[in-house]
Amino acid sequence: MSKFWSPFVKDLVPYVPGEQPKLAKLVKLNTNENPYGPSPKAIAAMQAELNDSLRLYPDPNSDRLKQAVADYYGVSTAQVFVGNGSDEVLAHAFHGLFQHGQPLLFPDVTYSFYPVYCGLYGIPYEALPLDEQFQIRVEDYARPNGGIIFPNPNAPTGCALGLDAIERLLKANPDTVVLVDEAYIDFGGETAIKLVDRYPNLLVTQTLSKSRSLAGLRVGLAVGHPDLIEALERIKNSFNSYPLDRMAIAGAAVAFEDKAYFQQTCQAVIASREALVAAMSGLGFEVLPSAANFVFARHPQRDAAELAAALREHGVIVRHFKQQRIAQFLRITIGAPEQNQALLDALGTIL
Amino acid sequence: MSKFWSPFVKDLVPYVPGEQPKLAKLVKLNTNENPYGPSPKAIAAMQAELNDSLRLYPDPNSDRLKQAVADYYGVSTAQVFVGNGSDEVLAHAFHGLFQHGQPLLFPDVTYSFYPVYCGLYGIPYEALPLDEQFQIRVEDYARPNGGIIFPNPNAPTGCALGLDAIERLLKANPDTVVLVDEAYIDFGGETAIKLVDRYPNLLVTQTLSKSRSLAGLRVGLAVGHPDLIEALERIKNSFNSYPLDRMAIAGAAVAFEDKAYFQQTCQAVIASREALVAAMSGLGFEVLPSAANFVFARHPQRDAAELAAALREHGVIVRHFKQQRIAQFLRITIGAPEQNQALLDALGTIL
Repeated sequence: MSKFWSPFVKDLVPYVPGEQPKLAKLVKLNTNENPYGPSPKAIAAMQAELNDSLRLYPDPNSDRLKQAVADYYGVSTAQVFVGNGSDEVLAHAFHGLFQHGQPLLFPDVTYSFYPVYCGLYGIPYEALPLDEQFQIRVEDYARPNGGIIFPNPNAPTGCALGLDAIERLLKANPDTVVLVDEAYIDFGGETAIKLVDRYPNLLVTQTLSKSRSLAGLRVGLAVGHPDLIEALERIKNSFNSYPLDRMAIAGAAVAFEDKAYFQQTCQAVIASREALVAAMSGLGFEVLPSAANFVFARHPQRDAAELAAALREHGVIVRHFKQQRIAQFLRITIGAPEQNQALLDALGTIL
Repeated sequence: MSKFWSPFVKDLVPYVPGEQPKLAKLVKLNTNENPYGPSPKAIAAMQAELNDSLRLYPDPNSDRLKQAVADYYGVSTAQVFVGNGSDEVLAHAFHGLFQHGQPLLFPDVTYSFYPVYCGLYGIPYEALPLDEQFQIRVEDYARPNGGIIFPNPNAPTGCALGLDAIERLLKANPDTVVLVDEAYIDFGGETAIKLVDRYPNLLVTQTLSKSRSLAGLRVGLAVGHPDLIEALERIKNSFNSYPLDRMAIAGAAVAFEDKAYFQQTCQAVIASREALVAAMSGLGFEVLPSAANFVFARHPQRDAAELAAALREHGVIVRHFKQQRIAQFLRITIGAPEQNQALLDALGTIL
């Protein structure tokens, strides 16, 4: 540790993202990217910004994008916040909405960035165990807390929670913020944005990296009561006035406007998932019910870490987490049909 | 204030960026953008990334960009940090390097984001007065501190500090970080990056928004001892794994590689500045010596706020700060020759 570091820096345990291999020929099923490209109309909108106008700052408020999101969900722009990927949006939410002395609550098996944010901002937390079927038990969250956060569908399990359960959670915790992280919602879950007008303590985050196929562009958003959005805006404007570049604002806005392409590609991913679940079950895997663009699966006879290594030998990358409770699972992104077939072919050889 | 806010949020006083008017016909000399577009080679590099590969995450480490910066300055990539605009880089530096209980020191007239970051991270500070000629007095900084930060050239004055003075500052403060914010260095200052191998307490930040004409892309960087860079990396990796999008990494790297275009456009801006200073002096303005792409000037007979309002009536936007000590100054960005002439024509009518 350097004497120049602020004291908390030495204890930071950063998040480790999935590998971004520089070899193009690998079948990359490890970071839940979309197998289809972004909307061609979104590409065209970015193209229109790729010129000398880049010498000028972007709109610091990203009004065009906020309006597109507001129109899509039927909310007002005062209920919409946007940021440089949903990870930045989540960071601001931890900083601005979860520092209340009491522990933040989230599942023991969940997005592994949550405890990292707690380290960054000095927020205590409790990780509450999922049940035996890897489902969230909402009744466990009726305890003193400084906030609640979980992905829906959960990651890396892929399991979705219904809006009725989310409403029970909101009603049981009227004095703290419940953040529903909907990174994967468009692949089969039901968005809690439908509830924001009725629950001032609900914040919903989403990303354009998955269902809108713009992981390489870095755009995320939050929808909630204007008071919650105001906290995020205050932090954003005390951190970085212009988090979204000119191409990101335009491309992300059009990605929301091009509903036909969005629905078509989401449906294709869902159909591929159902086919993959059936084929993997046929190979003896236990696959958790997935509402996401990935499956979470274990094989009763084979060690998951060894399987992941063997798949890599066959040119297929999947994600394995060492955390004890899920150490026998693999998280496998839904690829294009030919990628999924390559995975199944490799598994057929290995098993 | 909402009960859901973390307590510090209510006291945040966010930074207010210069106006980004949505009317294109205004002569925009208010946010220090470059009058020339970015390198055509940088545009071409971004073009090559604008395709279906946007479905994939970018390189979380931005290796290509770090290498380009390291090559340009003759340092190692372990001495380079990159972020989503220099404002994000500065935010991480405040968070990770300036929290030592003692006050952070910076000039009383300086980049107005510094006290905002202090509010965001709870850092005490002292603003030390510039001298009568609006210059930094390095001897004032020999007092207990948790860090020192200033822009070089300073903003909004445009006045540069020599490397000899910066070395005196570094030697007098071996136990705290001295951050030199070189947003405007390429228009006439001498970069302190030359000193990073000799001073482990020196961190230099730069932006691609000014001399490299990419304000609309959002890229900034820091160069310093690997220990300082490690603190920034730990925070970045606990905040947002992928702060730079695929086009930003490629475009920014090539902007550093295309030295010929960079030098040509910087020289053009400097020549325009000298012509503008002469013309404004001829109109009776007192213009501070500028090593930046803007001038800071006052007219002994005319109120600055009224002048700014009158210029806007003539379709020219400049920046006016209400802070008492500089309330009679205007900060005017160096535009293209025809923009500068439009400014002079308007001033000729008004005065």
